[in-house]
Amino acid sequence: MGFFEAHRARLEQAVNACRTRAYWSAFPEIASGKIYGETAKADGESAFKAMLGKPFDLGQAGAKQVGREISPYGMALGITYPAADPDTLVEASLKAGDGWARASIEDRVGVCLEIVERLNKQSFLIANAAMHTTGQAFMMAFQAAGPHAQDRALEAIAYAYDEMTRVPRAVNWTKPQGKGDPIVLDKVFRIIPRGVSLVIGCATFPTWNGYPAIFASLATGNSVIVKPHPGAILPLAITVKIGRDVLTQAGFDPNVLMLAPDEAEAPITKELAEHPGVAIVDFTGSPAFGQWVRENAATDLVFTEEAGINSIVIDSTDDFRGMCGNIAFSLSLYSGQMCTAPQNIFVPAGGVETNDGHKSYDEVAAGIAAAIDKLLGDPDRAANILGALQNEATAQRIDAARKLGRIVRDSASMPVAGFDHARTASPLLLAVDAKDDRAWGEERFGPIAFVIRTGSTEESIALAAQSARRKGAITSSLYAMSDGVVEEAADAFARAGVALSVNLTGGIYVNQSAAFSDYHVSGANPAGNACLTDSAFVANRFRVAPMRRQKAA
Amino acid sequence: MGFFEAHRARLEQAVNACRTRAYWSAFPEIASGKIYGETAKADGESAFKAMLGKPFDLGQAGAKQVGREISPYGMALGITYPAADPDTLVEASLKAGDGWARASIEDRVGVCLEIVERLNKQSFLIANAAMHTTGQAFMMAFQAAGPHAQDRALEAIAYAYDEMTRVPRAVNWTKPQGKGDPIVLDKVFRIIPRGVSLVIGCATFPTWNGYPAIFASLATGNSVIVKPHPGAILPLAITVKIGRDVLTQAGFDPNVLMLAPDEAEAPITKELAEHPGVAIVDFTGSPAFGQWVRENAATDLVFTEEAGINSIVIDSTDDFRGMCGNIAFSLSLYSGQMCTAPQNIFVPAGGVETNDGHKSYDEVAAGIAAAIDKLLGDPDRAANILGALQNEATAQRIDAARKLGRIVRDSASMPVAGFDHARTASPLLLAVDAKDDRAWGEERFGPIAFVIRTGSTEESIALAAQSARRKGAITSSLYAMSDGVVEEAADAFARAGVALSVNLTGGIYVNQSAAFSDYHVSGANPAGNACLTDSAFVANRFRVAPMRRQKAA
Repeated sequence: MGFFEAHRARLEQAVNACRTRAYWSAFPEIASGKIYGETAKADGESAFKAMLGKPFDLGQAGAKQVGREISPYGMALGITYPAADPDTLVEASLKAGDGWARASIEDRVGVCLEIVERLNKQSFLIANAAMHTTGQAFMMAFQAAGPHAQDRALEAIAYAYDEMTRVPRAVNWTKPQGKGDPIVLDKVFRIIPRGVSLVIGCATFPTWNGYPAIFASLATGNSVIVKPHPGAILPLAITVKIGRDVLTQAGFDPNVLMLAPDEAEAPITKELAEHPGVAIVDFTGSPAFGQWVRENAATDLVFTEEAGINSIVIDSTDDFRGMCGNIAFSLSLYSGQMCTAPQNIFVPAGGVETNDGHKSYDEVAAGIAAAIDKLLGDPDRAANILGALQNEATAQRIDAARKLGRIVRDSASMPVAGFDHARTASPLLLAVDAKDDRAWGEERFGPIAFVIRTGSTEESIALAAQSARRKGAITSSLYAMSDGVVEEAADAFARAGVALSVNLTGGIYVNQSAAFSDYHVSGANPAGNACLTDSAFVANRFRVAPMRRQKAA
Repeated sequence: MGFFEAHRARLEQAVNACRTRAYWSAFPEIASGKIYGETAKADGESAFKAMLGKPFDLGQAGAKQVGREISPYGMALGITYPAADPDTLVEASLKAGDGWARASIEDRVGVCLEIVERLNKQSFLIANAAMHTTGQAFMMAFQAAGPHAQDRALEAIAYAYDEMTRVPRAVNWTKPQGKGDPIVLDKVFRIIPRGVSLVIGCATFPTWNGYPAIFASLATGNSVIVKPHPGAILPLAITVKIGRDVLTQAGFDPNVLMLAPDEAEAPITKELAEHPGVAIVDFTGSPAFGQWVRENAATDLVFTEEAGINSIVIDSTDDFRGMCGNIAFSLSLYSGQMCTAPQNIFVPAGGVETNDGHKSYDEVAAGIAAAIDKLLGDPDRAANILGALQNEATAQRIDAARKLGRIVRDSASMPVAGFDHARTASPLLLAVDAKDDRAWGEERFGPIAFVIRTGSTEESIALAAQSARRKGAITSSLYAMSDGVVEEAADAFARAGVALSVNLTGGIYVNQSAAFSDYHVSGANPAGNACLTDSAFVANRFRVAPMRRQKAA
């Protein structure tokens, strides 16, 4: 049985899930030995440790070895990867793309599904790789870089498959001619890819953010060059290696999927993006570089997730404690290093109504601060939630931010058992006025949040929506008991192109975006020019070449 | 009954036709009194004549009147249109767009369907308007600017409706939590438009090429500014007027659809395209201006149909006479002023095998020339096929082209009964060698064609495909008896992103692109960056704004 048939049922479920957007997941997020095998955890850790301090066996040619990854938990990985220059990479990708383009939809999609299946089996290895590059705590690294990212890959494959199969393969076109013989044409429609697809990865979610583009492009017949962030190469190197193994087994040139590693001191991203052989660019990263890519890439077909400033508007709540706890978790998770993490919390100067009575602005701020303290009170739990800071610049940013407002809760580094040199920081919470938009109006990536004193909920909504339109935003969150306020916020945030979560007090957080259900990034504000989970993300990655033939008389 | 319900059955048929791509048409192409009403033809002509020499009643504010259209059949139309500056237009469009964006999918799609229905009723008026701006002969103007363009509009509406309704309006998302209570979110997905959509029209097929963009953008909630070519304003002015009437009747601000007329001496297109309020640009026109639009428009969301050089490859045929007749018609129809008309006919130096025996290169060229002479032998038939030259520059281009090769058949102006000053030209057919690519390797818009002597069919295919990749092409045509040659050409042209027609000898011509079946423009070579008839053409014209709400416990 071929790969396609082997995974067909899962594919069909995924296509259906994308349509209904009800809860569905293909890959278990629980890192349990019962699911992944009793030795899976230990095996993954061993495999990771065996990779340290050595050249990575990618099976890809390279004129030199690069790689200087350092774990946010302290140690240098010492892994090097074979590197080639952009011309060589693009040439090899173009050459490999030829056979891939000719493959049937089923053959290509089957290969993609098999890659994802094998990635799933390596979830513990990938978790270790993600932990020691992104700084995510182990359990988050397992979920986000493992099964959640695999779900995202499957989602992209499902969208691509659905989109390609909407094009009929052939049709008999018979046009009546009154009493005369009809005109008859046999038409055949062939899916043709764009060419070489360049996927530029980020340092915080290399697989979760990279897989949608990688698999959308692969499934639609493009060859893919994965350019990892120099600080987070390993998770994508493992991914590419697994992909190349499956491609080889299926009889394709493994260069259909290539890695383009570099080092921060000698970056090759611009040269790759400007290469005339590149037909698609996907980018996750900073707005500054995102703008450069949009303006300078050799192709107009550029999909970006850049960054934004996410807001919470507090109007009222019937669960003050639940609200504070929920916000505390959202601010703390992975030390605020998520594109979906909130930064700005808008609270009216006159305070808010809650189930615990009226709470002043200061009481709301203090309530959130206390909830953070409580959440992070246990060092083990704190480490599991916060993880580590991916980049030293974030630590410096926290230091610089302290003077931007009144400190409600200070940031502190937190111990991580077993990693004495981990770079960590708990959330910094600052109180500012609405007029202090030089403080809250810029993105402050990391565990930095502002409680912003506004004149009213109406002003809170207006400021948050305006900020989203100007600077971008991926998520927004509202606490309000009145349907009128919810409607007002829903309107304002929809117009600003931001996903809105309302009254989250339980086990779901505004940072979380579920595959097959949530639309991640709207493409409708500066946080990104594309949604990563819709038809538009895949429909333009291939084109249709029709042939019509006059039916012999 | 609302507009949506009134036209629902037609919409569903159109959605189905887009999927099967079998023959289907909503609007009869036969200009018969039995279908359109016995007085329809006379009424349309009267209505057209009543518009001449007067300000056009658009119902749209304007600081001044513009318009200097001159019929290719000789007379000045003398119609003026209200013109406003780009800032005023964009501001009015943004304002009107607000209510349009909030309307339901059904309300918007219903309005679009009603506009198309009313356009159909005015097909004879539009035929006259198109004839005296584009230069198409009356019957072609009726079909191409009337029912065929209406089918294209319906096709775009169907794609937009299908795409929008793939997004569920709401879903209950229930995530199991082992033995605990599940997490439950109510999710609502709202379609949000991009904003103001600018549609830049062309002079040869103002409605056929403009309707897909106009209706795709309208249906997906964008307000639309139609910038007609200064030489072909009237067909789009009638369209916009009918659209504004329907919008008003449905309770919307008519400025959801606006006309932005200008004159060649004082063009406003660049200012409009660069306006920061414009979110989508659709362009049909020259590659030079298309490149400017792609590089300078205020938005990255730009859809273009530019131009290309279309080829015919002759390898062999079992119907030499049918082939020559078919090619003759393709070269003559609307004097070669179609984006789908062939220019280059590749023939091996050693000649080709046919049902009439071996034909030398010269005999093939002579056969096509003779077929043109025969086709255009009757002056009335000639006028009905050729129409007139839209632009004086085309007449000059023919003059200049005569020295580019050996004249196999010369171009001549042809009389048109009733229009002594019509600007007409029959096809110029030149014999050149493959190496003379300075002659055939550039687009020569109008009735100019080359019979190119090549070393072999293999070379013919390679040259035609290479030309398509470099200069763009929308159509290609092949005559070959061997399946091997057909496969070889199918591969080569698919890789070059060109639609291929094989062995057309009957009543279908390579120039013709059928709504609901043929993919018009591939978007995969320089002839245009988009296909006008697929999901990708509509999927990015709207975005999704999600709201999720924790279910009250």
